[in-house]
Amino acid sequence: MKVSVIGATGYAGAELLRLLYQHPQAEVVHITSESHTGEKIASLYPHLRGLYDMELESMKDIERIGRDSDFVFIGLPHGHAMEVGRALAGMPVRIIDLGADYRFADTEVYEAWYHVPHTHQEAERVYGLAELYREQIKNAKIIGNAGCFTTASILALAPLAKQHLIDVNTIIVDAKSGVSGAGRSAKQANHFPELYDNFRAYNVAKHRHTPEIEQALADISGEKVLLNFTPHLVPMSRGILSTCYANLKEGVTADLVSAAFAKLYGKEYFIRLLGEGAYPSTKEVRGSNFCDIAWHVDERTGRVIVLSAIDNLVKGAAGQAVQNFNIACGFEERMGLDFVPLYP
Amino acid sequence: MKVSVIGATGYAGAELLRLLYQHPQAEVVHITSESHTGEKIASLYPHLRGLYDMELESMKDIERIGRDSDFVFIGLPHGHAMEVGRALAGMPVRIIDLGADYRFADTEVYEAWYHVPHTHQEAERVYGLAELYREQIKNAKIIGNAGCFTTASILALAPLAKQHLIDVNTIIVDAKSGVSGAGRSAKQANHFPELYDNFRAYNVAKHRHTPEIEQALADISGEKVLLNFTPHLVPMSRGILSTCYANLKEGVTADLVSAAFAKLYGKEYFIRLLGEGAYPSTKEVRGSNFCDIAWHVDERTGRVIVLSAIDNLVKGAAGQAVQNFNIACGFEERMGLDFVPLYP
Amino acid sequence: MKVSVIGATGYAGAELLRLLYQHPQAEVVHITSESHTGEKIASLYPHLRGLYDMELESMKDIERIGRDSDFVFIGLPHGHAMEVGRALAGMPVRIIDLGADYRFADTEVYEAWYHVPHTHQEAERVYGLAELYREQIKNAKIIGNAGCFTTASILALAPLAKQHLIDVNTIIVDAKSGVSGAGRSAKQANHFPELYDNFRAYNVAKHRHTPEIEQALADISGEKVLLNFTPHLVPMSRGILSTCYANLKEGVTADLVSAAFAKLYGKEYFIRLLGEGAYPSTKEVRGSNFCDIAWHVDERTGRVIVLSAIDNLVKGAAGQAVQNFNIACGFEERMGLDFVPLYP
Amino acid sequence: MKVSVIGATGYAGAELLRLLYQHPQAEVVHITSESHTGEKIASLYPHLRGLYDMELESMKDIERIGRDSDFVFIGLPHGHAMEVGRALAGMPVRIIDLGADYRFADTEVYEAWYHVPHTHQEAERVYGLAELYREQIKNAKIIGNAGCFTTASILALAPLAKQHLIDVNTIIVDAKSGVSGAGRSAKQANHFPELYDNFRAYNVAKHRHTPEIEQALADISGEKVLLNFTPHLVPMSRGILSTCYANLKEGVTADLVSAAFAKLYGKEYFIRLLGEGAYPSTKEVRGSNFCDIAWHVDERTGRVIVLSAIDNLVKGAAGQAVQNFNIACGFEERMGLDFVPLYP
Repeated sequence: MKVSVIGATGYAGAELLRLLYQHPQAEVVHITSESHTGEKIASLYPHLRGLYDMELESMKDIERIGRDSDFVFIGLPHGHAMEVGRALAGMPVRIIDLGADYRFADTEVYEAWYHVPHTHQEAERVYGLAELYREQIKNAKIIGNAGCFTTASILALAPLAKQHLIDVNTIIVDAKSGVSGAGRSAKQANHFPELYDNFRAYNVAKHRHTPEIEQALADISGEKVLLNFTPHLVPMSRGILSTCYANLKEGVTADLVSAAFAKLYGKEYFIRLLGEGAYPSTKEVRGSNFCDIAWHVDERTGRVIVLSAIDNLVKGAAGQAVQNFNIACGFEERMGLDFVPLYP
Repeated sequence: MKVSVIGATGYAGAELLRLLYQHPQAEVVHITSESHTGEKIASLYPHLRGLYDMELESMKDIERIGRDSDFVFIGLPHGHAMEVGRALAGMPVRIIDLGADYRFADTEVYEAWYHVPHTHQEAERVYGLAELYREQIKNAKIIGNAGCFTTASILALAPLAKQHLIDVNTIIVDAKSGVSGAGRSAKQANHFPELYDNFRAYNVAKHRHTPEIEQALADISGEKVLLNFTPHLVPMSRGILSTCYANLKEGVTADLVSAAFAKLYGKEYFIRLLGEGAYPSTKEVRGSNFCDIAWHVDERTGRVIVLSAIDNLVKGAAGQAVQNFNIACGFEERMGLDFVPLYP
Repeated sequence: MKVSVIGATGYAGAELLRLLYQHPQAEVVHITSESHTGEKIASLYPHLRGLYDMELESMKDIERIGRDSDFVFIGLPHGHAMEVGRALAGMPVRIIDLGADYRFADTEVYEAWYHVPHTHQEAERVYGLAELYREQIKNAKIIGNAGCFTTASILALAPLAKQHLIDVNTIIVDAKSGVSGAGRSAKQANHFPELYDNFRAYNVAKHRHTPEIEQALADISGEKVLLNFTPHLVPMSRGILSTCYANLKEGVTADLVSAAFAKLYGKEYFIRLLGEGAYPSTKEVRGSNFCDIAWHVDERTGRVIVLSAIDNLVKGAAGQAVQNFNIACGFEERMGLDFVPLYP
Repeated sequence: MKVSVIGATGYAGAELLRLLYQHPQAEVVHITSESHTGEKIASLYPHLRGLYDMELESMKDIERIGRDSDFVFIGLPHGHAMEVGRALAGMPVRIIDLGADYRFADTEVYEAWYHVPHTHQEAERVYGLAELYREQIKNAKIIGNAGCFTTASILALAPLAKQHLIDVNTIIVDAKSGVSGAGRSAKQANHFPELYDNFRAYNVAKHRHTPEIEQALADISGEKVLLNFTPHLVPMSRGILSTCYANLKEGVTADLVSAAFAKLYGKEYFIRLLGEGAYPSTKEVRGSNFCDIAWHVDERTGRVIVLSAIDNLVKGAAGQAVQNFNIACGFEERMGLDFVPLYP
């Protein structure tokens, strides 16, 4: 399959290039960047030196790129993927957007949290969280690849929401991410000495991944969901750990909780169930497409605490995009993704 | 005042030596270690080279140490401070224990969580969280210095518990600590390559700081408190951030929340109120005795999220011990503690 | 090819398992550990969970392991690989030792630096630095895989030594390694809080990689080489950067230096020449088998400074072992190693 | 003494504010920043919240600031301190410049390396490396505070240069610094994910600290000195380790080397001699004004390797500035600087 990457110079774009290099059925035909048009990708990402000799092109002639490609992956800031989507609407090329533009069924929710009008409301799109929306992804024209925090958090809570084991009004998601999640642009706040040996929260009660988690859990549970989501910045490069809390419904035991996880994920290759009382850690999934999940039932308080770990740039972005690509192409889902976490 | 440090070779002990060196009214007369008796403290902690030329003694002759000292600070593992406390019971020397032995009013709670019998139940003791128990500390014979996670968490929630602004049954404390909190003993789990670029939770639903937070909040609110406390290990040396969640009672506004913090802490030097919507960070208090606090009211969900940051070895251990020492001696509370965080 | 890993529980052993999992022509048949016999490898290295379900065996019946295997990789401490080598001497199985036992042509040098008698002096062995000893590796019975610091340092200096462009008596190698190079055993010195935000040298003028670098450069240049090698510990997990200094011989220009690198390495896939004036960095090779090299000619002082970067666990250990395995099997040298560095 | 800080918003400026807060004889009267005029310093450096309530002023009316101050500390980029120096030339106020403008006796050297004309050549100035230029500092009008790398490197080599124990033409300084040395401005290269778990060299053979080290060693030894200086970036916040190499002259023994260090530094409070065969580490001096030094004599190669560690923001910048201030004021040299390193 011929694929192109629109907006290839962010961390997710570069990670996509890493994964596509190792994918036996993907050939990268175009990569774009408006701010670095004409430069070699390896001059921006020297780790790709010798592996990618391609030049970054402008996306101005997006139709040509669309014609040349079976799939385009989009790594643009939110608001811009919609333009690409509209431009390619009538063409056979399929789209996997790593941003937020195509993640919401209800565009009013999108507009309320992202503060831009949604200009491609009619787009036939599917939410790209592979394990939960696999069937819809198979034939989708546009896949709105799930966000990083949201992937970790939704996968952690979906079995409990689906089986109605928790009171969805009591959900609290306390999530922690490595700094690559903040993107590659240099900012004072993410300057090395500011973050090293430092830990803090950000965007409390207003992070845009909140409604995305709510949408998915509502869809899965059939109930309206309002929750608190709190992101934190960990002084490390990669990885997300989500610590999810909810009140168990009356009579729900640890066994029922475990059974719910086994039922939904028992056959999933990329979800590794560590079981009750265990502790996933971000380094144990680093560089891989795995999502490791464990859970703890606290009988004292009647709550369940679910822990999930992913690599934010792989299962939380580029890896999931490739997984969705495999599903959409009818390839084996692990194709090009079947490698071991980089530890230590 | 002549002071001794029993169990001086842990991180809290060494930090105490750092602070006492700079304290104008304290003279260190004995330091002890059973495993390193006869060695110089600077051979174990070379950063003290040239500053402390003392030898570590055994605590076998604790009575002599007690006679020589106005205060003894105890940095022993739990279960062992009680022995020292009993041995010094009839002497004028006063005790500040940095461990858990003297933190609980109800020794059954201690025994249930620490799995050892409490052998000094009759001890006249006070909980050593300076801002909340200042009056009792003044004349205490034994001060059970508050724990690290607990200091950050109790200070974050006390104003709301005291003013009955929150439903105490909905409290969730999601806390994150640097690795120095795990002590100085080398363990596989805390080996550098295992933790670097890694993040994980531990002791979910069973960490021993849980009942300590519950005890204090119950004392302050007059209500029974059961809560979830989840500690996480951050790949950094120092610092704790506590993210505390609770449902606001009907009609409680952001202004009422802010007023509660101002009322309880408005005159406290070591508590810096950052206000509503702000973000404390561990590096902004590193090496200092400050506790920085901010809060966020989420009208969408009806919850308050309180964030508090401390240096686990200072306000969470040695600094608070010196603060309690100052209170107990009638010194100015900032004496020897009035320095600036080390940033960046 | 059937392969076994003797001593699979160190970092190099675990990294070997990572790489072999992805190798299309290798099947792991035995893995051993004396201290963890009977345990699953994934219980020691949870990142391998779901990927390796094997149990660790004892190496007591090494002959059986040898019979079952085409190759054995040895990840034992120095002194122990010799025993395995002797036990398998008469069998067709071939050996790649990741330790030092088979690296030295002159066993007196080995004994002087490693302080143990060499008990397998008659072994037919070759030094396993793939780019420089490829021909000898092809048919070797025993390959003494090059060390981590030595790989980076020898590759940096070999072109200059071979072309006699430098005065070999002026060589100084100042090297820096991530902490995984110190192994997995928990030690006080490598406890997380001790190393974080910390930097220091160790083993100055006595590190055992010194004679290994000297041996190779002497072999390549035909001159006796005595040099200084100084290792440092960087607060990171993976990666080595070697900064190598030498006086240029009279009349040697930057062009001659560049030509020497191009001549020796121009066709090497795993050596990426960044050219004069450039800066390799360890993260740009992280997780990969690349060695990135750049050089600087300082006309003011008449010296050349060569910089080389590798991942100490890949090109410095397990990756080079697989590369040697490929050479020894007649496979394409990149087989199973052709992946992209993990950045950022 | 009334002091002002011109250019207070860089890391060195903020560190100076930390130290001056704790100095019993210094009162900060003005702090300036052109880009943040009118803002509170604590809005830029929240760790100073509650400690400094001052507003940043413009330096446009530098004469007024000069009149109000006994000392001005300058934390401006090179080229700009000269302007301040000229403006204050006729006033009694004394100047401590933390930049490079007043470090060079020979302004041609300055101009050759800094690529700007020196516009204050007639300035009566002294090189501000306290231990080596104490007498001159006492009455200096302008003190050109020594650089960070240079302080560590000159202190490491001065005893050997002074006693003529080394061949100064063979000196190589391989230095490693935490990222705070690169300043506070956010740059792509110093973005957190780019540097974390990464190590690299920079400015090989062209770093501006080279001629500063050469100048001092030439002054001390009476010989012309040309050397190689190679800086590296360590993924940590603070600290410099200098690894210095030189050939020992014929017949120079380890004892002679040790005697040279003892002779020059035996009475220095801020220089801690660890002795032959020891290993300073940056964390053991973190936050303090100490310079820890050790040396290794390699009889095999005839070289000496000297290791020195400082905190780049303290002894390498603000701490040394306060030390120079104390000397210039006739205060005890440790005043306001006599605190313990922050470890771990």
